[in-house]
Amino acid sequence: MSGAARVLERCDVLGRISEEPGRLTRRFATPAMREANEVVAGWMREAGLATRADPVGNLIGRRGEGPVVMLGSHLDTVIDAGRYDGPLGVLVAIEAAERVERDLEVVGFADEEGLRFGTGYLGSSAFTGRFDPSWLELRDADGVRLGDLVGDPGPARDDVLAYAEVHIEQGPVLERLGEPVGVVTAIAGQSHADVTFIGEAGHAGTVPIGDRRDALTAAAEWILAVEQAGGTVGRANVEPNVRNVIPARVTLALDLRHADDAARRAAVDDLRRRAGRGRDVTVEWNDLADFPAVAMDERLSAAFGVATRLSSGAGHDAAMMANIAPTAMLFVRCAGGISHNPAESVEEADVAVAVDALERFLRAV
Amino acid sequence: MSGAARVLERCDVLGRISEEPGRLTRRFATPAMREANEVVAGWMREAGLATRADPVGNLIGRRGEGPVVMLGSHLDTVIDAGRYDGPLGVLVAIEAAERVERDLEVVGFADEEGLRFGTGYLGSSAFTGRFDPSWLELRDADGVRLGDLVGDPGPARDDVLAYAEVHIEQGPVLERLGEPVGVVTAIAGQSHADVTFIGEAGHAGTVPIGDRRDALTAAAEWILAVEQAGGTVGRANVEPNVRNVIPARVTLALDLRHADDAARRAAVDDLRRRAGRGRDVTVEWNDLADFPAVAMDERLSAAFGVATRLSSGAGHDAAMMANIAPTAMLFVRCAGGISHNPAESVEEADVAVAVDALERFLRAV
Repeated sequence: MSGAARVLERCDVLGRISEEPGRLTRRFATPAMREANEVVAGWMREAGLATRADPVGNLIGRRGEGPVVMLGSHLDTVIDAGRYDGPLGVLVAIEAAERVERDLEVVGFADEEGLRFGTGYLGSSAFTGRFDPSWLELRDADGVRLGDLVGDPGPARDDVLAYAEVHIEQGPVLERLGEPVGVVTAIAGQSHADVTFIGEAGHAGTVPIGDRRDALTAAAEWILAVEQAGGTVGRANVEPNVRNVIPARVTLALDLRHADDAARRAAVDDLRRRAGRGRDVTVEWNDLADFPAVAMDERLSAAFGVATRLSSGAGHDAAMMANIAPTAMLFVRCAGGISHNPAESVEEADVAVAVDALERFLRAV
Repeated sequence: MSGAARVLERCDVLGRISEEPGRLTRRFATPAMREANEVVAGWMREAGLATRADPVGNLIGRRGEGPVVMLGSHLDTVIDAGRYDGPLGVLVAIEAAERVERDLEVVGFADEEGLRFGTGYLGSSAFTGRFDPSWLELRDADGVRLGDLVGDPGPARDDVLAYAEVHIEQGPVLERLGEPVGVVTAIAGQSHADVTFIGEAGHAGTVPIGDRRDALTAAAEWILAVEQAGGTVGRANVEPNVRNVIPARVTLALDLRHADDAARRAAVDDLRRRAGRGRDVTVEWNDLADFPAVAMDERLSAAFGVATRLSSGAGHDAAMMANIAPTAMLFVRCAGGISHNPAESVEEADVAVAVDALERFLRAV
């Protein structure tokens, strides 16, 4: 069996280790997650790695004693997930580690999606000294305290020479380019804001258009401005939300991403100026997040020996690991750009290209 | 005390007859409604009218034996209502009836707002043979059956020579014109539809703008088209309604009104063609209602002796009564066009003009 075929077979095995019958859901620190860790630990040992878990449940397979090149991705999933978002990167890493005899670690992070406690990058934060002790008091939907599931992960690792992560693209760029894999140049920065348009309710039958202060028409103009700026309005809540009443209040959720932080912030400033302009409404703007872009390391990136370049709109453990080590990422083409969905799909031939690229990486860095 | 002052004082009295402490709510067939009917019946008798209730609870004050000119409006209210929407017309009618010695009826309709059973015009439908016997099986929020509250109202009245109704405008047109009252030319027709835009969910960080099938941006363009057409989108529901997910499905509620039915239907047809045009989304269009416009009677309308003309975007009992008799309506200016709100307000001088106009009407028809 080829390495790529084995990777896909193992993705299928992990895809059946779920909290729920009939669909794949594997959240942080659940029995399903522990079972997945045990299975992957077995594969790591077959590849000649010594395995252990750290205090937050990250699975670590190591060869050698000194500073290491680290390969990894996450083993947790979203609800009703596909089989490749996360696990593919861990399994490709095990394949490459088996081929190249050098000191390294392969890591399966315990929580990247953050479903259970609302903490993205919980797993990788434990490696970078960014695990916030206040998180220990977080409770999940069933009232379980995070602090009863994990221990103190301690300070940042200082023995990581480099970090590399393979991940499905989750977008259609590689498919459109006809390329099996691509090197990530940067993980885009993100701006999140809630923007509320406040007008005045009125009777849809009696208030002439020119006298209205319609919060929804003002919001509609801005939704189109966000699209022009390359951003997304994913949520819209209308009050009172009744057919024959002119909307008094509309709150929109902005998500705007860009690989260039200055361009992103300029776009947000422009959207702030345009919100409600020329309309008799008031606008309340609530900034919620400003995550800077994370550039990947150019020298490491070259080590994949892959020409195709693209940026990542989604966040990854690599964005966290870049805080303590030079970092690189390789994307694998996925069918239709679909992810977070059982329909996630990758081609064996593309996975083979990814395994080869990661092998080259390990030999070059 | 002037007639207008007495009308306003009586509006204040009725404004305190409520199902709820602290705010005015008077729904069909409640103890508050019965108390209001008793109080108004007393005022009718003071004006020389013989009072009775019909099988659905409409209050009727009559002078004479033969065919009648009928004046009326409704005595029920919305939740947290103002004091004038409905009762003003009944009390102005009693004032005018006292001044002109002729055969007539003054009617206080039992249910125009339709709050309790979802049946608009329940009261006036009983006069026009349009009370649907299937309504008897309707139940209110507490499970009370309509048929246990009312009897069969029987066939349409055939002794109504004309119907006239005074009502607050519920819009800002008279205020803007600086006119105390205006004659209604027609009650606008209404088109109601639910329009669903269906795109495809996707990750806000990874799907390029050009590859998206965003249901919300398509919906936003259409919301602006509805505004241009003079209509209202009062409700918008987005799925999945999550910040970082491109909206897959948006349903909008259309309310489009026009005094000219052909113009209204042409506008709806145009909006149907424009929905989703140039966007990679599918559109489901669900027509819910097509209420034709109701023209008021020109000869009757002239009898008010008022020059100002305007159309009504809101529905009124007059729209139902026009099925059995020539009908006319007079609007009274209300502050800020506000209605269905405790802030509803009218000026005593304007009410005096309305009483005089209805007196002229009774003498002329």
